[in-house]
Amino acid sequence: MKTMSLIVLAALAAPAHAQFAKPDDAIKYRQSAMALTGAHFGRLGAMANGRVPFDAKAAADNAEVVALVSKLAFTGFTDGSGQGNTRAKAEVWGEADKFKTAASRQQEEAARLLAAAKTGNLDNLKAAFGETAKTCKGCHDNFRRE
Amino acid sequence: MKTMSLIVLAALAAPAHAQFAKPDDAIKYRQSAMALTGAHFGRLGAMANGRVPFDAKAAADNAEVVALVSKLAFTGFTDGSGQGNTRAKAEVWGEADKFKTAASRQQEEAARLLAAAKTGNLDNLKAAFGETAKTCKGCHDNFRRE
Repeated sequence: MKTMSLIVLAALAAPAHAQFAKPDDAIKYRQSAMALTGAHFGRLGAMANGRVPFDAKAAADNAEVVALVSKLAFTGFTDGSGQGNTRAKAEVWGEADKFKTAASRQQEEAARLLAAAKTGNLDNLKAAFGETAKTCKGCHDNFRRE
Repeated sequence: MKTMSLIVLAALAAPAHAQFAKPDDAIKYRQSAMALTGAHFGRLGAMANGRVPFDAKAAADNAEVVALVSKLAFTGFTDGSGQGNTRAKAEVWGEADKFKTAASRQQEEAARLLAAAKTGNLDNLKAAFGETAKTCKGCHDNFRRE
């Protein structure tokens, strides 16, 4: 997975200059992307946990959204956007390498989740969902205030 | 464009049952999707209007996000989600056919915008950006409160 990890890190490190006119825009942007990530990840969870019937097409569609919008979310943690209407801890910027590593892990698992969803096999989805969920929780535990 | 129009309408009409636990979730969801749409459409506009240098790869990436998240936004106008923290007019539901037609037009233009961005030609991007912007404005004018 080293190659993917480097690709993901490169994508996350892409210049974000002029993407947000002000810090609040970056905050709103990442919160929007997180909200969509959560909504579609939740739909996958409902299938993985048997609360709704497994639908292979819907699973693949949802996983595709998760992979894309979770990537977008990480582009919103721009320098200077740690203050304001945000639950992001100062560690996002203070321990930037650790945060980037956690983000990179989530992106790897999101890519695996998409691949798993595309197999059309519920067991694959369940396994990948669990692994991805761990990376979400890990980052929230360490970098998001209660 | 009739075929695409029908495909888009079918997608928009896909069952959204159990996608949102409560109306507020649908409102937050569509607002999040609209916020992301606006952010990435704005980046395309900056290129189309010459405020930032044209970057073919970035244009294609942004157009891809616009095409996907604007589609998601329209799935958030579920029945019963017209009340609460929303600027959506009652006409979204009261004139549902008109709203769906407007949504379908936006989706068609967003698809054309993506195709235009992928050509790597700034003039193509400018033209498609303008047409897409009209569909955004048209829908906001008719279906969103000031």
